[in-house]
Parts: sequence; structure tokens; C-alpha cells
Amino acid sequence: MPAGFVAGGASAGIKASGRPDLAVVASAAAAPGVGDDGQGSAARRRPRVAAAAVFTPNRLAAAPVLVSRRHLLATEPGGGGRYGWATGIVSTSGCANAATGAAGLADQERVARWLAEHLGAEPETILTLSTGIIGTRLPLDRVEGGLAELVPGLRADDAGLAAAARALMTTDSRPKWATATLTLPDPDGLAARAVRVTGIAKGVGMIHPRMATMLAVLLTDATVEPAALAGLLRPIVARTWNQLTIDGDTSTNDTVFLLASGAAGTIQVRPGTAEAAALRRAVEAVARDLARQQAADGEGATTLITCQVSGAADDAEARAVARAVVASSLVKAAVHGRDPNWGRIAAAAGNALLPEAVVLEAAGLPTAEAERRAGRPAGVDPDRLRIAIAGQLVFDGSAGGPQPFDREAARAAMGGPECLIRLDLGLGSGVGEAFGCDLSEEYVVENSEYTT
Amino acid sequence: MPAGFVAGGASAGIKASGRPDLAVVASAAAAPGVGDDGQGSAARRRPRVAAAAVFTPNRLAAAPVLVSRRHLLATEPGGGGRYGWATGIVSTSGCANAATGAAGLADQERVARWLAEHLGAEPETILTLSTGIIGTRLPLDRVEGGLAELVPGLRADDAGLAAAARALMTTDSRPKWATATLTLPDPDGLAARAVRVTGIAKGVGMIHPRMATMLAVLLTDATVEPAALAGLLRPIVARTWNQLTIDGDTSTNDTVFLLASGAAGTIQVRPGTAEAAALRRAVEAVARDLARQQAADGEGATTLITCQVSGAADDAEARAVARAVVASSLVKAAVHGRDPNWGRIAAAAGNALLPEAVVLEAAGLPTAEAERRAGRPAGVDPDRLRIAIAGQLVFDGSAGGPQPFDREAARAAMGGPECLIRLDLGLGSGVGEAFGCDLSEEYVVENSEYTT
Repeated sequence: MPAGFVAGGASAGIKASGRPDLAVVASAAAAPGVGDDGQGSAARRRPRVAAAAVFTPNRLAAAPVLVSRRHLLATEPGGGGRYGWATGIVSTSGCANAATGAAGLADQERVARWLAEHLGAEPETILTLSTGIIGTRLPLDRVEGGLAELVPGLRADDAGLAAAARALMTTDSRPKWATATLTLPDPDGLAARAVRVTGIAKGVGMIHPRMATMLAVLLTDATVEPAALAGLLRPIVARTWNQLTIDGDTSTNDTVFLLASGAAGTIQVRPGTAEAAALRRAVEAVARDLARQQAADGEGATTLITCQVSGAADDAEARAVARAVVASSLVKAAVHGRDPNWGRIAAAAGNALLPEAVVLEAAGLPTAEAERRAGRPAGVDPDRLRIAIAGQLVFDGSAGGPQPFDREAARAAMGGPECLIRLDLGLGSGVGEAFGCDLSEEYVVENSEYTT
Repeated sequence: MPAGFVAGGASAGIKASGRPDLAVVASAAAAPGVGDDGQGSAARRRPRVAAAAVFTPNRLAAAPVLVSRRHLLATEPGGGGRYGWATGIVSTSGCANAATGAAGLADQERVARWLAEHLGAEPETILTLSTGIIGTRLPLDRVEGGLAELVPGLRADDAGLAAAARALMTTDSRPKWATATLTLPDPDGLAARAVRVTGIAKGVGMIHPRMATMLAVLLTDATVEPAALAGLLRPIVARTWNQLTIDGDTSTNDTVFLLASGAAGTIQVRPGTAEAAALRRAVEAVARDLARQQAADGEGATTLITCQVSGAADDAEARAVARAVVASSLVKAAVHGRDPNWGRIAAAAGNALLPEAVVLEAAGLPTAEAERRAGRPAGVDPDRLRIAIAGQLVFDGSAGGPQPFDREAARAAMGGPECLIRLDLGLGSGVGEAFGCDLSEEYVVENSEYTT
């Protein structure tokens, strides 16, 4: 648990199961008397911490997303709702508060106001998360009562954040937690300060199957201004959570928050510096770890699928090809069956990065050369593509295509907890990866046998 | 069976099961002495017929696609490989001849040459189709022997085309066939000629599960030049087959051919005329019928899902929203479970038409108004969206959102062979529809339990 934060989780009764469903993460200074580790100097106890966010692009974004964005905008009007200042985050699990209109928005503001009152903070400094059933209203009385009980018990230690991680969960089989450490100079440059980066997240699925939602909260005690924090977060999300697919549905509630308390007493981390690079690496390691935990715990999943792409025209194209492979229903089903079916992988890769117009009005056959000339993505060139499954080269376009390989050994290697698919496109130096999981009968059962 | 064509199917031994796997459709005049109905005048017996095609945009397009495109280009250099002249189509089922490199391309040219020799035609007038396992070579000797037996028995009647339809099949549970009739004036404008439009297609899936492929051959005896035929076909495919999704994977072999024999003796159908509109309606009715048959027969499917969208900014946006709904794994699983889970439908619709950059670097929340101002798709506005499932209004964004409805009645209505989901976006006059199927455990079994 990075310094400067307190956290906790509780069962407020939003979920019928009685499992934890209410989580709070707050600035330690905003919750005086609770969770203080006794080490806080005046400088470390500033009530508001820097905050950056990435939200779902879904046009039916849920009330918690709209409220968070509005609040960030209020505390930092130039940030476009992507960064600002926060004193706390409140998360409700079991109800997404999505597609609930103006009433749902008012509910979510009320929840934010209650946490603000407990923290003695402005409501605009509260960020909100929700996950669960779409189209149902929050049970406000339970949330109000739950907050009143939870806030006084917030803790600055790992147990507090672990309780929050449990309260984020819906159908997750286990809480997700990842951490990294680094050192950064203090403001005088005289000493090195230990910096912690810790994240919690929930995967996909719910107790009753609804929209697959994903929430993550990343905390660090480094000192970073909000705009710099947002600049750090966006490309990290592009390389981690935006490369994670379970079933291809982008939810109405997806949110990633990154908060920086400054409590470690480091130098101000400014964009473009060595310190920013070091912090970026640590935050990205945590984000990647959480995304992989989520993929491995996907609904009905038995195997984590990692697709690594090299030799693309650029990194963005590499990521797009990797995403297409792990998103393919046929690839997912093949991995579930331990079937080294490289034809499905090749076809999925070939299907990436097609201009929308070509997909819709398909007529010509774009080649990598022609596409580059037209200023469009190069995509995949069948004569240069190479594919390896679980360590075995199965296809080499520059050597006639299909390669002999030991099918039984490949099947055995695919039987582990992770299946690694590697592609080299032979076009450039772009690299990227994506994370997914196999498609099992259990996924269908979880998402069809229960009623809403 | 439209006049001017002969067709047939046979078991050549490409499939281990011994089921039909070789189909030929040819110009009747190019196959003299076989299948002639005795009614053909000299004018009707021209060896080459007008041809238009739409191919998969997959960058790993299979050899049959590359060969067909090259041949169309050879017969009509200005057509970009999208239209030209043809004497026959040869289809092999059980082997996709995809990702087979230069050797696979040479194999496919050889198959085309054999049919050309049997028909006494130029090899460049032969179009090719293949479907089945990716990465394996065609068993040339079997194809050669099969063609030698099949071609002399080609027939001009429905039985010939029905045999061809059966030989297209892979894991289809039944052959797909659709037909429409219309009348068009003769060249003098003195008489009305009866025109037939008939299509055959294969759905998705294979005996051993591989890439989901879709092939279709549409025939008409109207008189249309190739370029006009291509102009007719493209928007029809955009409204029918490009609105069909079973599992979201675009294959390496997808091909639609439309051939016009001119054997009905009609006026030349020119773009922009009333005759072209009448022919377009007939061809589209056949294409739509076939696409719906394919969706209903999707792997593991028990229910056809039709999503109809109205009130979109334009027709293309309506189609995109409809496509997003039927492509959603969670919507598909909900329909399988007879669960009127409108939250998943709303979220899937809200996820349509997001600019790629927003999806990848998600930060802001686009609104319909802001998007329109930025010249980007308007998408879906939650305050105007209305959703009905199986005839019941479940969500009305202009009336607070969720609407009370009879859940049990909705469940019962969803239990039929077709589930109709309707959305009105309240933004404009654009309409569109898309076709899909439910996601069942059986889909996963079919695509994971068998090995390649």
C-alpha cells in the first residue's frame, strides 16, 4: 500500500449474496484520524491527491463514469475530464447504475456527496465506480449506511486495500492485486525515496451474468501533477487494458483511475524525464500484471492466451494484430480444445487493420504494399508472416507457408495455464501484445443459464 | 434455375466423409450438348456470361480468391477484379486452399484450367471457390477425376443447381437456396420477359471445425453488362452478407458471385433505370433470404437473431449499430438463455461506431452532438434510444430509461426460431438490419472438441 492512502471494503447489501460490495480508497490526509501511519509530515498530508482517469468510450457510459468525469473537470477545468484532483473513490458492486437516466445520475452524485461529507471534502473531489446489473437503480439507503460504517475503519495498510479489492469483485474468482517499487530522488536530489505503485482491479463477469465490466484503481506515493499523471496513464492503458479482451464487449462502466499522493516525498515527476520513465515502467508493470490476472480469470476461462506480435509497421499495428488474434472466437475455441490450429490464427491476423470501407464494401484485396501507398495500415503480408504456437514454428510465409511441427508436443504445451502465440510480420520494428482467454462451454452457461 | 446456366455437384473425395465436395456452375452455351433445355436461340447461347464478385477483405485471402480476382481482371481490365466475363465456376469443399503460398495458387490455376478445357473455354473465364481446412493443399488428382465425371452431367434444371448447393456445404445442416422472379421488357419494348434470380450459399462451419467460411453464387437470366452487375451487387452485399455474423471471424475465402446469362432475352439493364431497380430488389431478396438461412444454421445455433435499427443518422450507421448488437457475445448468450437482458443490447449499441482512436486511447466520452460536430459518426444517444425485444418496449431513453414490461411474455416470445430486436435511435431517418444467431454450448463444442 503506497503511503498517503487509506482504503477499505464492506458488505452494504447491494448484492443479494451479502458479499462485499462497497469499497472506498481515500487520501489519508482527507480522512484524519483514520489509517494514519504516524509517519505523515505536514507536507505529506495534503487532502487532495493528483488523479488521472481513462473511461469507457461506450456512448451509454454509466452514471459513475459521467459523475467522475464531471468532477475531474470541476477540479481541473483544462483537463477535459481526464485528470484533476481527488480526495476519495467510492465503488459500488452489484449495480452498474447504467442506462438509468437523470435519476441514476442524481443517485450517483448523492453517493459522492456522502463520501465527501465523511471525509470533510468537496463533493467534486470524489470519483465514483460502479459495476453490476445494467438498468437498475442503486439502493441508496444501503450505500448510505454502508459508507457510515466503512469510512471510520479505513486503513493505511495492505489489509485495507485488500478489502477494497474484494469489494470490487463480481464474478471474479479471486481479487486482483499487483505491486511494484522503485526509487526516485527527493526534491533536493540528496536522497532516494522508495516509491510504491499498487493496483487493484476486477475482471469480467458478475454473480448474475451481466455486462462484462472492468475497473482498476492504481495508487502511487510519488509526486506527480494531474496532467503529467494523465500523460503517463493513457499510453499505459493502450498497451495493457486496451489489449485485454474476454468476449469483445466494451462495457458502459470501464474505468481506470491512477492516484498519486506525493506522500513518499519524491521530486516532482515531470514529463520527459528519467524519473517519469522509471515511474511509467513501474505503473505499466502493475497494469500489465492486473490485465493478465483478469484475462486468466475471464468468465469460463481455463487458459490465459497471450499473443505477442513483432515486425509490424509500428507498435499500434502490432497491438491491433495481437488484439484480433486473442479476440477471435475460433482461436479461443481452438485453444480450449488444445488444438494448434494455426489457420485460425493466420486468418484472424489477416483480418486485423482492415479499413472499415473495405470491410463493408469489400471488393478489392488490399496488399501491404498497396495499403502503405494509400496511407492506410500495412496490416499483415502473407508472404512475410511467421507464426509460432507454444514455442513451435507452424507457419512461415517466406518459406512456402505451413511448416512441419510436432502436433502432440504443441497440444501438450497448450495444456498449461498460459498459451503463448507469437507472430512476426516481417514488415517493420513494431511490437505489441494482447491478452485473452479460451472460450469454454462454461462461458456460455454463465452468460445464458441465469436470468436477469 | 435461371435460363442459360447448367450446374451440378459430385463427391470427388476431397472430404474424407465422402460427402459431395465438388460443384460446377457454367454458362449453358459453354457446355454444348449438356443441360441444354432446347429453348436456346443463338442469341441466348453466348459462351461467356457477365460476372460480378465481392471477395473477403482478409489480407490472407485464399488462392481461389486471388485466382478469381486475377481472371476477372484479365477479362475486363478496367474492372479492378470486381467484374468481368465468366464461362464457369468451380468450387471445392473440404480444403480452403488458404495460406498455401505459391504452390496453392498454382494448384488453383490448374483446377481452373481443367474446367476450362472441359468447357472449351479460356482459363481466364473460370472463377474459383474453395472452403474448408486452412493450410492444406488441394488433392489435385481427385479434383481432376471429379471434374471429368461431373462436367458431362451438368444440368440446366433445378436438380443440377441443388446438387451444386449440396456440394458447397461443409458443416451446414441443410443446403441454402433462394429464388425470386420479376418481369423486364424485351429489347424492343414489345413484350415482358420473365426473369429468374436464384442463389445458393453455404453457411458457416465445417465437418472438422475450421475457419467459418461463406460462399454464395447468384444467377440471373437478365441481360446486364459486368460493370452494371458489379454496381448492383456491392450495395446489396453491404445490406445482406456484410450484416451477417456468426462468430465475428472474417474468413480467408468469403466470396459472392453474381452471374447474368442474358438468356431470358430482356432489355439491357442499365444503371439508374426502373429495370435496374426491379432487378436489384429481386437480387437483394434472394441475398437476404440466403443470409438469414445462414444465420439460422450458424454453428450451434438454435435461434436466428434479427436486429432492426431505425432513426439512425444514416443507413450505414443503422447497419453498424445493428451489426454491433448481433455480434455481441453477451447478447447472443442472453438470447440463448431466453433472457430479455436489454442492458446488454443497450451497451452493445452504445459501443458501435466509436472512432478507433477513442477506443484505443479512451479518454473522453463522445456525445452524439459532439461527434456530429467533429464530422464523426453520431452513433447512439442514450437519451433518445428506444429498445424493443420480441415486440415489447423495454427501454425508452426519452422517458427515463428502463420501462416496465412482461418479462415472462418476453421470455416466451424469445423461445421461437427467430428473436427480433428493434432499436430506434431518434436521430435521423437511417434504417438497417443485421442477422446473427444465439451462442450455445454447442458452438464451443463444435469448435474445440475436434482436432484439426
